[in-house]
Amino acid sequence: MPPIKAAAGIDVGGTFAKVGIIDASGRLLREDKIATEPARGPQDFVARMAALLSAWRAEGSAFSAAGLAIAGDVDSEKGILRFSPNLEGWDGFPLRGALAKALRLPVVMDNDANLAVWGAYRTELKGKPENVVGVTLGTGVGGGLVLGRRLYRGSTGSAGEIGHTRVEVPGELCHCGMRGCLEAYAGSYGIVRRARLALAREPRGGSRLRRLCPDLKLLEPAHLSEAARHGDALAREVLRETGFYVAIGLSNLVLVLNPDAVLILGGVSRAGRWLLDPIEAYFKKQPFKVPFSRAKLKLAENPNAGRIGAALLALEEGRGR
Amino acid sequence: MPPIKAAAGIDVGGTFAKVGIIDASGRLLREDKIATEPARGPQDFVARMAALLSAWRAEGSAFSAAGLAIAGDVDSEKGILRFSPNLEGWDGFPLRGALAKALRLPVVMDNDANLAVWGAYRTELKGKPENVVGVTLGTGVGGGLVLGRRLYRGSTGSAGEIGHTRVEVPGELCHCGMRGCLEAYAGSYGIVRRARLALAREPRGGSRLRRLCPDLKLLEPAHLSEAARHGDALAREVLRETGFYVAIGLSNLVLVLNPDAVLILGGVSRAGRWLLDPIEAYFKKQPFKVPFSRAKLKLAENPNAGRIGAALLALEEGRGR
Repeated sequence: MPPIKAAAGIDVGGTFAKVGIIDASGRLLREDKIATEPARGPQDFVARMAALLSAWRAEGSAFSAAGLAIAGDVDSEKGILRFSPNLEGWDGFPLRGALAKALRLPVVMDNDANLAVWGAYRTELKGKPENVVGVTLGTGVGGGLVLGRRLYRGSTGSAGEIGHTRVEVPGELCHCGMRGCLEAYAGSYGIVRRARLALAREPRGGSRLRRLCPDLKLLEPAHLSEAARHGDALAREVLRETGFYVAIGLSNLVLVLNPDAVLILGGVSRAGRWLLDPIEAYFKKQPFKVPFSRAKLKLAENPNAGRIGAALLALEEGRGR
Repeated sequence: MPPIKAAAGIDVGGTFAKVGIIDASGRLLREDKIATEPARGPQDFVARMAALLSAWRAEGSAFSAAGLAIAGDVDSEKGILRFSPNLEGWDGFPLRGALAKALRLPVVMDNDANLAVWGAYRTELKGKPENVVGVTLGTGVGGGLVLGRRLYRGSTGSAGEIGHTRVEVPGELCHCGMRGCLEAYAGSYGIVRRARLALAREPRGGSRLRRLCPDLKLLEPAHLSEAARHGDALAREVLRETGFYVAIGLSNLVLVLNPDAVLILGGVSRAGRWLLDPIEAYFKKQPFKVPFSRAKLKLAENPNAGRIGAALLALEEGRGR
C-alpha cells in the first residue's frame, strides 16, 4: 500500500474545534467541527475528536498523521499546553500524546498562529520563499515566522508574539496587562474601542456604520469593513489607523528579519484595501529601500489556514516525532 | 604544513580602520589601525590595508583568511557595499573581491553590527546558545541575530536593523529621517539631546555632569556614565530612560524571536547597571514569563568584538566562499 498523503488538521478554539482531512497540496477534502467544551476536560475532548476521526476512517477517509493547532503557549517539543486563556484547566495535559495514542498515529501540536502562518505559507505563496513573517489579526493579534523555509519556534517554542510587541509609549492598555502592545490597537477589541470613541466624538459621523450596527455594544470589525466598503468615512479612518499600527509592527519585523514576504491573516484582514493601503504607504515611505522593496505584502485568503497548516506540518514532521 | 588557525579581522569605520590577527579562540594576537581616508577611494584603502597585512605576514604573523566589518548596508553574498553614510563613493565597489585578490586569501564581508554580535556570541557566551539577539549602542543603534547558531542575514543581507524599529508614535526625529526609532532615543545623539533638555529644565540638577563637561556642546554619553557613577541623579535618570527605550526594543525582539540570550554591545553599554537595571526591571514585569526568563541579558565586554567576529567568521566561512 502506498503511503497515504493526507493528514487530519484540528484547530482547537475555546468554543469550537474545527477539523478536516487535508491532502499534501493543502486541499481540504472533508471537514466538520465539534464543540470544544473545555470544562469537560482535555481527555473527554480527545475521546470525542478521536471518535469522529475514527468514524471518518471507517468511511474510507484515510489519513496518516494529525496536527493540532491551539491558541496559547504550546510546548511543541513535549506536546503539552503550557497556558491557554480559552482552555482553562488544560494546562500541563499531554494533549499530543493522548491524541496520538487514541488515533495510533503520529501527531504534531503547535500554537494556532504559527500553524496558520505555516498553512498560508505553504498554500498561498509561490516559490517557497526563504523567510516569511505572518501576523494573524483576530480578537487577539498573533504571528508566526518562517525562516530558512522552516517554521521558527524560538528557544522555548514561544516565538512570533508580534501582538505584544510595543508600538507606543505609554499607549493603550492591552488584554495582557501591559500598555502600547500592537494588539491593543489592532486586535478586534482595540479596533472597536477606537471606533466607539470616534463615534462619540463625531455625533454626525459614521452614519452607515450606525445603520449597520445600531447597538454599539455589538460592534465588530466586520461592521467597519462593510461600512468602509460603502463609503463611510469614519469607518475608513478607524481602519486606516489600524493599518498604521499594523504597519509599525510589521515594519519593525521587516527591519529585524528582512523577509521575502509578509502575510496578513485573520478575520480583520477582510477589511481589504482599507487596511492594506496604509501598510503599503508606510512601507513605501521607509528609508531602508532594499528590505522594504523585497518584503511583499499579501493578505492571506484561505480561512482554513490553521487546520491546513496543522495537517501539512503533520505530514512533513509527523514521522520523525 | 598544518592549516593556519588565525585570520585577519578588519573593522572599517569612517575615520579609522582597526585591524588585528585573531586566532580561532577569538584572541587578538596583534593589532593596529590605519586612517580610512574614504575620499581617497576604496582601491587606495585596499592597497594600504593589504600592504600592512603583507608586512605582518613577512614578519611571521600568519593568517589564512580575512574578514571585513563595514558600517552600512552590505551585500555579503556579492561582497559589495550597497550604501554607507561614512564611506561616501564606495557604494558598488567590490571591496571583498579586491581585498581577496590583493591578499590572495579568502575574504568574508558583512555589516559591522552583525560581525560584532557574532564576535561577542562566539567569545562571551558559554555553551553556544541556539538563538541570540544582539544590539550595538553607539552613535547609531544596530544589531545582529544568531539563529540556529548561525549569523542570520535575512533575504537581502539587511537583517538586524533594530535601531530603526519604532518604539513610539509620533516620537523623536531619527537620523534616518523617520520618527520614533529606537536610535532616536538610545543612539548617542538621542541620549545627549535628552540630557541637554533635562539640564535646561532643571537648572540646579546635574551638578556633577556640568562639572565633568562644562561646555554642553561637547557632551557625550561617557560623561553621563561617569556622572551617574558619582551619584548624579539627573545623569542616572537620563540613562534610566535610555534603558527603558532599549528595553522596549529588546523585549519586542524577545517576543518575536524567543532567544536564549540578549547581548548589549557598544560604548554606551559602559553605563553598566544604570542602563542594565531598567532593562532587567522591564523584562521582569512582562506577562510572558517563559520567554522572558529564558532570555539572559548580558553586557558584552570586549571592545574588539567587530574585528574578532570578522576574523572568526572568515575562519568559519572563508573556505567556502
